[in-house]
Amino acid sequence: MEAYKKLTELGGELTLLNDTSALLGWDQETKMPAKGVEYRAKQMAYLGGKSHDLWVRPEVGDWIVECEEGIRSQDEDEDHFANVRDWRFDYDRATTLPTSLVIEFQETSALGKATWAEAREKSDFSIFAPHLERLVGLSKQQAECYGYEECPYDALLEGFERGARAGELTAVFAALRPDLLALGKEIADRGPRVADDLLEGDYPLEKQQAFNQEVAAEMGFDFAAGRIDTAVHPFCSGVGPRDTRLTTRYDLKDFTSSLFGVLHEAGHGLYDQGLPADKHHLPVGRAVSLGIHESQSRLWENHVGRSREFWLYWLPKAAQYFPHLAGISLEDMVYAVNKSAPSFVRVEADEVTYDLHIMLRFELEQAIFSGDLPVADIPQVWNSRMKEMFGLSVPDDAHGCLQDIHWSMGMFGYFPTYSLGNLNASQLVAAAKKERPEIDGQIATGNCSALLTWMRDKVHQPGSRWLPGELIKRATGEATNSAVHLKHLRDRYLG
Amino acid sequence: MEAYKKLTELGGELTLLNDTSALLGWDQETKMPAKGVEYRAKQMAYLGGKSHDLWVRPEVGDWIVECEEGIRSQDEDEDHFANVRDWRFDYDRATTLPTSLVIEFQETSALGKATWAEAREKSDFSIFAPHLERLVGLSKQQAECYGYEECPYDALLEGFERGARAGELTAVFAALRPDLLALGKEIADRGPRVADDLLEGDYPLEKQQAFNQEVAAEMGFDFAAGRIDTAVHPFCSGVGPRDTRLTTRYDLKDFTSSLFGVLHEAGHGLYDQGLPADKHHLPVGRAVSLGIHESQSRLWENHVGRSREFWLYWLPKAAQYFPHLAGISLEDMVYAVNKSAPSFVRVEADEVTYDLHIMLRFELEQAIFSGDLPVADIPQVWNSRMKEMFGLSVPDDAHGCLQDIHWSMGMFGYFPTYSLGNLNASQLVAAAKKERPEIDGQIATGNCSALLTWMRDKVHQPGSRWLPGELIKRATGEATNSAVHLKHLRDRYLG
Repeated sequence: MEAYKKLTELGGELTLLNDTSALLGWDQETKMPAKGVEYRAKQMAYLGGKSHDLWVRPEVGDWIVECEEGIRSQDEDEDHFANVRDWRFDYDRATTLPTSLVIEFQETSALGKATWAEAREKSDFSIFAPHLERLVGLSKQQAECYGYEECPYDALLEGFERGARAGELTAVFAALRPDLLALGKEIADRGPRVADDLLEGDYPLEKQQAFNQEVAAEMGFDFAAGRIDTAVHPFCSGVGPRDTRLTTRYDLKDFTSSLFGVLHEAGHGLYDQGLPADKHHLPVGRAVSLGIHESQSRLWENHVGRSREFWLYWLPKAAQYFPHLAGISLEDMVYAVNKSAPSFVRVEADEVTYDLHIMLRFELEQAIFSGDLPVADIPQVWNSRMKEMFGLSVPDDAHGCLQDIHWSMGMFGYFPTYSLGNLNASQLVAAAKKERPEIDGQIATGNCSALLTWMRDKVHQPGSRWLPGELIKRATGEATNSAVHLKHLRDRYLG
Repeated sequence: MEAYKKLTELGGELTLLNDTSALLGWDQETKMPAKGVEYRAKQMAYLGGKSHDLWVRPEVGDWIVECEEGIRSQDEDEDHFANVRDWRFDYDRATTLPTSLVIEFQETSALGKATWAEAREKSDFSIFAPHLERLVGLSKQQAECYGYEECPYDALLEGFERGARAGELTAVFAALRPDLLALGKEIADRGPRVADDLLEGDYPLEKQQAFNQEVAAEMGFDFAAGRIDTAVHPFCSGVGPRDTRLTTRYDLKDFTSSLFGVLHEAGHGLYDQGLPADKHHLPVGRAVSLGIHESQSRLWENHVGRSREFWLYWLPKAAQYFPHLAGISLEDMVYAVNKSAPSFVRVEADEVTYDLHIMLRFELEQAIFSGDLPVADIPQVWNSRMKEMFGLSVPDDAHGCLQDIHWSMGMFGYFPTYSLGNLNASQLVAAAKKERPEIDGQIATGNCSALLTWMRDKVHQPGSRWLPGELIKRATGEATNSAVHLKHLRDRYLG
């Protein structure tokens, strides 16, 4: 297969370019001095352009056709099949849009981001509205170019989560929503279990760094193939097949801020480190989707990091770093990291309310793209939904519909992947514990190897061999649904 | 001039690629986890290859010819002239060697580096000798391709210091050598001026970092366009027109190790930050040579950083960071940072003996390339010269002819640029102080602006407009020579 070989070689070249861009991006967020920003943008645009130009050449399309014609059945070689499947998807996505639309979208989203920042700063939606209008219009054009079966929104969703459909998500969320609201109400009625300022103390930066490093290493994060730095908005970036960079941020009065940042990002990082490095240059060697990536981060952050077993082992260790914790009981510690209350801001929301924030955005996005919701009405609908869900009156748009950066970059269809991550995480953990009943007992001794080994086997090593829906079915025996996640939340908050 | 415009645009593209490689290199030395090394090598080879391929295209050669034909006289536009001059030089250097020689050299030097590391580890020259033999042979072939007037060694020298000639350097060094030896003897006869362990104390890492940062900022290093990190072998790397990265290393028992590392690298960094950013993509916007670059680092490290005026201002400040210094007098502090004694290792040598180490290497390199010194005899000649110069018996080759990495990478002709840096630094400082007599007084108040402004004007802003020899003549009124440097050393050590 000459064509397959050529695509493999091209994959190697593109991966070198794209990983280099990833490092430039990591450096920009963590190390780059302020005055480097203008030149860095040029570097990244140049490398991105080179990578794009290499990929969209007509002969690349011919090679893919040749590969497709050579495939007889998926069972012959799953990896081979997956590579061709994803080359086709990537090629069509990259070549389907007319150049004029690509350029207009890039320019509009660049402007949109700056305008959104100003609008949020001034908490004035009217500044952002015309740009959002334009981005929605361009995204609708994109959706028409990409094509879809049921609704244009599906075409956008597909860019973030292969195989996801608005119709299926709506059904899953419809099952989840009333139970989350009911659970939230039960929690509110019960009242607080620990004082709000229980953990407030002095947590020196170096001690937090040392503690976080110890925890991440015990989880299985390989520091010979990764590191942790500081960033305003924590993220994880794979910059090479054996080079995974996490970031977190520090609150000197509360060590859990940086710790949960590290647990979350190390979850992403463990996935990255678990991908098959020898297939790094091929589609099958990549993470399969945002919804699977997020399942790994939420799993380590919430299912492990907020569990009683975790703190049984780590509370005494933490108290050695932070004397403030010496007088706090295990029960109170677990309560302190498992509080739930309605709030305005998604990124600060707890496990119970988080998905309600996502559903709000998902509903609005659908209404925007079906044409039912004019952009100008977004603030009003947002605020009335917040009132309805949480009984909260949004004080201003900065704490409402202007809080997230996604729409300003034209990223419509991204939000649902966060909730898919939560649901997938619960199903994966439940399946893992069923097959490996020793997991909880191990975590209580600081050992995460059984859990990690299971994830390596079922989630990390397959890479993109199966689309996310199939991966979850193979790993957990059922499609992504709300039941297991709801059970997890009930056990944790009411159990 | 269509051709000039095309070369300018190509320069922009190559600069983006090369600066990206520089960032990858910086990251490798400062941040990259160990397991990233193999992939990083691939990334850098890929980007280096792309840059090379873009440059050596035949049409680039045609454009340069077109530019050369369009130039009537240098006086018309000095920058224009300099760009064409350096494009020609770079193009010839990149295209003159047959591809087979380039590949063989790359492979041999890659092997040579690993073998040198092993040989140094085991202190066994015989392990390294066959590789060195091969590298010398290949470098001789290179020299023949490049061409020369007097001796093959000049062709290699030209790769590190444009316009430098072995004959001229030999004359300069011949004038320097006896006086350095005599000065060294006088210093030895006088005996030590302070106890060897005067500065030994506790210098916490964070305090050293804060102090170094304060000093570098006062020198004029712009931290909005640069930063300081830790590296095993300190270096300075410009990774963009407004992004200059310094490194140093820390000795927790002696703060001067990291401080002088920072002063030296910040000297390089100030040069980098002072180059004309709007010409960053053109030859004329680049640093002109290693010998000029090193003049800037040595100037801030030695002429400023080891001066009485510097410590008059900084000793009390340092004592606030490091209580150990509170009892130390200004005189003793100045003595402590101006010790001189014969030693085995170049990188640890003081201002008086340093250039003698360089002369040893320069003599050996010349003898190797004239054919007078067989590679096998290097250790013996090295050791007998060390005995002759310093009265020292080299204990093993790791402390002798295996100490430097340069030859293992086939870098012959590099060493003399260090001494050129020392001589140029002395001449530049003397010329600056003559024109701006307030410099010393300013430094005694922590203000380096007059000195920096002079360097900006005479050395940094011209970039590569003039070749290094002409730059020094214009700035100091005379060619690089030994007299001013010797006066500086005498004043400092005997004054």
